[in-house]
Amino acid sequence: MDNRISFSSDYTKGAHPRILERLYETNYQQQNGYGTDEYCESAANKIKAACECPDADVFFLVGGTQTNQTIIDMLLKPYEGVVAAETGHVAAHEAGAIEFSGHKVLTLPSTLEPSEGGAAVYSDEIGKIKADELKALIQRFYADDNHEHMVFPGAVYISHPTEYGTLYSKAELEAISGVCKEFGIPLFLDGARLGYGHMSKRTDVTIKDIARLVDVFYIGGTKVGALFGEAVVFPKGVPTKHPVPIIKQHGALLAKGWLLGLQFDTLFTDELYFEISKNAIEMADILRNELIQRGYRIYIDSPTNQQFIVLEDDRLKELSEHVRYGFWEKPDDKHTVIRLATDWATTREDIEELMRYL
Amino acid sequence: MDNRISFSSDYTKGAHPRILERLYETNYQQQNGYGTDEYCESAANKIKAACECPDADVFFLVGGTQTNQTIIDMLLKPYEGVVAAETGHVAAHEAGAIEFSGHKVLTLPSTLEPSEGGAAVYSDEIGKIKADELKALIQRFYADDNHEHMVFPGAVYISHPTEYGTLYSKAELEAISGVCKEFGIPLFLDGARLGYGHMSKRTDVTIKDIARLVDVFYIGGTKVGALFGEAVVFPKGVPTKHPVPIIKQHGALLAKGWLLGLQFDTLFTDELYFEISKNAIEMADILRNELIQRGYRIYIDSPTNQQFIVLEDDRLKELSEHVRYGFWEKPDDKHTVIRLATDWATTREDIEELMRYL
Amino acid sequence: MDNRISFSSDYTKGAHPRILERLYETNYQQQNGYGTDEYCESAANKIKAACECPDADVFFLVGGTQTNQTIIDMLLKPYEGVVAAETGHVAAHEAGAIEFSGHKVLTLPSTLEPSEGGAAVYSDEIGKIKADELKALIQRFYADDNHEHMVFPGAVYISHPTEYGTLYSKAELEAISGVCKEFGIPLFLDGARLGYGHMSKRTDVTIKDIARLVDVFYIGGTKVGALFGEAVVFPKGVPTKHPVPIIKQHGALLAKGWLLGLQFDTLFTDELYFEISKNAIEMADILRNELIQRGYRIYIDSPTNQQFIVLEDDRLKELSEHVRYGFWEKPDDKHTVIRLATDWATTREDIEELMRYL
Amino acid sequence: MDNRISFSSDYTKGAHPRILERLYETNYQQQNGYGTDEYCESAANKIKAACECPDADVFFLVGGTQTNQTIIDMLLKPYEGVVAAETGHVAAHEAGAIEFSGHKVLTLPSTLEPSEGGAAVYSDEIGKIKADELKALIQRFYADDNHEHMVFPGAVYISHPTEYGTLYSKAELEAISGVCKEFGIPLFLDGARLGYGHMSKRTDVTIKDIARLVDVFYIGGTKVGALFGEAVVFPKGVPTKHPVPIIKQHGALLAKGWLLGLQFDTLFTDELYFEISKNAIEMADILRNELIQRGYRIYIDSPTNQQFIVLEDDRLKELSEHVRYGFWEKPDDKHTVIRLATDWATTREDIEELMRYL
Repeated sequence: MDNRISFSSDYTKGAHPRILERLYETNYQQQNGYGTDEYCESAANKIKAACECPDADVFFLVGGTQTNQTIIDMLLKPYEGVVAAETGHVAAHEAGAIEFSGHKVLTLPSTLEPSEGGAAVYSDEIGKIKADELKALIQRFYADDNHEHMVFPGAVYISHPTEYGTLYSKAELEAISGVCKEFGIPLFLDGARLGYGHMSKRTDVTIKDIARLVDVFYIGGTKVGALFGEAVVFPKGVPTKHPVPIIKQHGALLAKGWLLGLQFDTLFTDELYFEISKNAIEMADILRNELIQRGYRIYIDSPTNQQFIVLEDDRLKELSEHVRYGFWEKPDDKHTVIRLATDWATTREDIEELMRYL
Repeated sequence: MDNRISFSSDYTKGAHPRILERLYETNYQQQNGYGTDEYCESAANKIKAACECPDADVFFLVGGTQTNQTIIDMLLKPYEGVVAAETGHVAAHEAGAIEFSGHKVLTLPSTLEPSEGGAAVYSDEIGKIKADELKALIQRFYADDNHEHMVFPGAVYISHPTEYGTLYSKAELEAISGVCKEFGIPLFLDGARLGYGHMSKRTDVTIKDIARLVDVFYIGGTKVGALFGEAVVFPKGVPTKHPVPIIKQHGALLAKGWLLGLQFDTLFTDELYFEISKNAIEMADILRNELIQRGYRIYIDSPTNQQFIVLEDDRLKELSEHVRYGFWEKPDDKHTVIRLATDWATTREDIEELMRYL
Repeated sequence: MDNRISFSSDYTKGAHPRILERLYETNYQQQNGYGTDEYCESAANKIKAACECPDADVFFLVGGTQTNQTIIDMLLKPYEGVVAAETGHVAAHEAGAIEFSGHKVLTLPSTLEPSEGGAAVYSDEIGKIKADELKALIQRFYADDNHEHMVFPGAVYISHPTEYGTLYSKAELEAISGVCKEFGIPLFLDGARLGYGHMSKRTDVTIKDIARLVDVFYIGGTKVGALFGEAVVFPKGVPTKHPVPIIKQHGALLAKGWLLGLQFDTLFTDELYFEISKNAIEMADILRNELIQRGYRIYIDSPTNQQFIVLEDDRLKELSEHVRYGFWEKPDDKHTVIRLATDWATTREDIEELMRYL
Repeated sequence: MDNRISFSSDYTKGAHPRILERLYETNYQQQNGYGTDEYCESAANKIKAACECPDADVFFLVGGTQTNQTIIDMLLKPYEGVVAAETGHVAAHEAGAIEFSGHKVLTLPSTLEPSEGGAAVYSDEIGKIKADELKALIQRFYADDNHEHMVFPGAVYISHPTEYGTLYSKAELEAISGVCKEFGIPLFLDGARLGYGHMSKRTDVTIKDIARLVDVFYIGGTKVGALFGEAVVFPKGVPTKHPVPIIKQHGALLAKGWLLGLQFDTLFTDELYFEISKNAIEMADILRNELIQRGYRIYIDSPTNQQFIVLEDDRLKELSEHVRYGFWEKPDDKHTVIRLATDWATTREDIEELMRYL
């Protein structure tokens, strides 16, 4: 067994102990299958209250790629594609799950050139799309005489936090939402790490803003205190009469659906979801300050639980004897960018142990 | 909350307590993601030992429809379909998940006409395919001059126990396996309830026989003591160089894959899987004997944990005040067939409570 | 080169000479691509007039399987399948093209048991579905508690003439149309041989009846005097805002679309389509009467251009030295069912030559 | 009817008169269906001889998007995508036909920034991919620790001539072919305008070079003298045991397949294909020289039958009263790029008429 401390990702641990307790407590209660149980209902109600969207439809799916694939397939007509940042999870890291469902991912550029010499190599814009570029893409499409021979932009996918830990401001989100409304294109926000975005100290976007501004989003459980699970919220209702067979076709209908309901019911009781998200942010902030103080080169100026630094390869080799980290990329032959992620369970002791090796 | 006792299915409870204990014990151990952890490895090794197939490839997926869809997509070329009983889960109850993946289900008849007047309305043949009918289908296909305009039989799907609780004999399984080998068509056995088949008192088929006779099968966890999870076994190895992206495309790659490994590691330690399966069989046998003794009409002569009886509708209405059951079908206007399923956790007290209402 | 006379099918010759003439006449006229030309417009108008459906949308596609696949994909939601006779072309002879598009074919039985001893082994019911069986299938589906785990009946496919040359009566068609309307399910009629149905002496169904009773149908050109091409008619309009990209996704948007328009414009000028269809019917009737008179065993009582007879294998061997026929099936070891098809260009001399060998 | 002269594209006319003659001559010959006729065989043999690839498999499909979709689906495993220039037809102008088949298009940049001030605004590099960039993409993919979560580069698509009329040199083609061989990735060349590439005066690439360097290519008929049709050539054989059902699944199996065989048999008799291609090149060269001489701004330095110029919008308005052209793009508010395409049937008189309006 690998006993090194790990900051490699935010899905390396089990679940918040309150969730495990409730699994124990309810283990022999006999539940209805496929999400028709009381816990799913209760969790949905708590989520609708937290998001202030009483008319929402809420579903509970198992994992991120599955959720992205299922939602996008619900949103799109066969001749439509989904617009995403070229760094977006659906564009780059889902093994073609969107295309497997028959849809193209239409990409907008989002990888900024790193700035030279500064501490923050990338700005906090990386991983995001811009409202004006989205609008230009849509207008260019409709202006093309041959657009019926092209893939229609049928939905917009954004992640918040992004895959790089960055966040949209409320103004940015409103602008993107405005473009989507203007062209009647639904906006989908991937919130696999939504809690960490909501609790960032450098955000003005709340979960209620999101529910107001997008057509569908999900509240990530896998990376934020649940064993697994993503809560999908359609604030204005789901755009299909029969979501269940679509979910089942995607292999995404869990037989013991109450396991998902129970977890989200727990996370949305007494604001547990936000409280544990806050912990990750506080630990990340401590880590970040320590790193800057010690002269580490911050690669992306991330306001959330994922921190990215550039290390010389020799230095990294030493570090890897004690610490597990996330490999990110190699900007050149002698350096490596790594990700250090805190999570709902990271402790001050963990950070201190990590700093001993840094 | 619905406090009536439930015999409606075998996926109404959580998990064997040993699994919950291990979730607690390992909750803060930090694991590698996506099934690359030590528990998946350990579980795979124990399964390979139990099945006596040391060269097998083993994967852990989340649920049944997902597993069926992913395996069948791995087995088939684009122009091939999967042969199944017309009552098979993939043919009838997966919302078109196989067709969603681009493949046709080629069906063989399996719903026998009920025999008149006897206690056992259906024989124990229901839900199964027959080797000679399979062979005839394949031969008819290749004999047709136009078969290149038709869907090639590219894999064979059977379930054991079937959706009706029935079992193949070893001779039947060998015959089907023989036909598959003769035509070079892989045989896939859906073992969502495999433990209950293995432990039936009326079977001569063991899990080792299955590993010897089929090309791929899965060991059901969801219905046999796990929170969720199906262990897929390719005894002679997986027929694709890159199973991971295929699994991910189907939304079936669990981030915290070790949750699956841990559960199957637990179930395959000290033969727990078989022991708890045995409990379900024993409870079903007691139930079945009681039912026969009290003059209930057995609808299908099932040797496993699912029992099917025919009730008059008035009688059923009374029963439903105290007991949850599985609705099966309505053979006529005045009767209903119901399913009563025992599971790994059913107790003698549960049976006694049920019998009080019957 | 094979110089034997051929009655093997109705797609063995080129096109009516008037079509070839117009190809010559228009060869250097420069046309707009992709069906936006004047001939497509003119042909659509003539078809709408002939069918008395002025509000129709008309498209021209290239071949039958392509047309079936594209139309069905336009009609169905992802979780829906198409209901068809188990002998229907989409169910049996399109290499899985419907499943390739993600949809299941839900089948109704249509192969009747042959009657014993009579001249007509099969009745004229073969190949057809029945309104009451269709209704029962739909009702059974919605009555099932688990129907959200099953494939929804989302469209109905019939062929007229069927693959066996048989025809629906107007009453039958009205009944099927009524069931479809009752459940809000679109009805699609495959008219690959529509002209031969319309001109049969044993039908009361006209092309206008069809336009009135179905939601979409196509007028076959490939088998009725065109080089290739099928004219798709949606009498009440196409149910998608953007049919062009859907057609293109299916590889079905011909660059030189005017070749299709020109052919149908020719066929629907001066009732040429019906006139040449009539020829095939007259030749088939002569053939049929001769066959009966000579004591041949008629296998299916077909009122259209396809005739089916049962021959002893020895007799067939002799015949095949002089005549090409369509192999249909082997009812037993010593007999073969063959198809003899007339077409728009069959002459009395052809029939006489054939009869010399029979 | 629009009587303006048209240079809008190379698919505005019918077919070379020799093809129409042969349609007449063979109209009542009765042929076997689905490409099993003598003309397909003869055409395949002539193509194999012309390409010096005696072991090739040759198929005849109807149109370009259909052919691209079918070939790519034959080449790729489910988890693989096809690499193409971002301007490639499969990436940009097929309404998502590749994604409809379940595959991602992985793009390489190919739109160069226009150079300032010169006569040739774009170089002849536009529309092409580069061997070193292809290699870098593949290496980057395999170097990524997470590449099993990404889409594998499984085939490479190039067009020759490209959508912009540009051509690969033999050295460039050899370099791309070398990279493909190094990584075991099949190379597919879209030759919708292959004749015009082969006969360009500024190329060193012959059809034999192509047959030697790629794994599959097609010889375009639709744009080069046929009514329709693309001849697909797999020089080393087709990589699937059953191409026919795959072709049929894509709706691409023409019933009267001999219409395709007959056309290509005609085009590959007495080098007709190359002779008529030569005409288009000669006419384009005359046009190009005239344009340069008259001071028109050449937008892309194209060595084939498509010529691109930039016009002021006022000037274009006048022109459009007399001439049909292809709209290409608007580089700014006051200018438009148009395409003027010659073809197999363009005459010196056509050019002269065009020049009168320019």
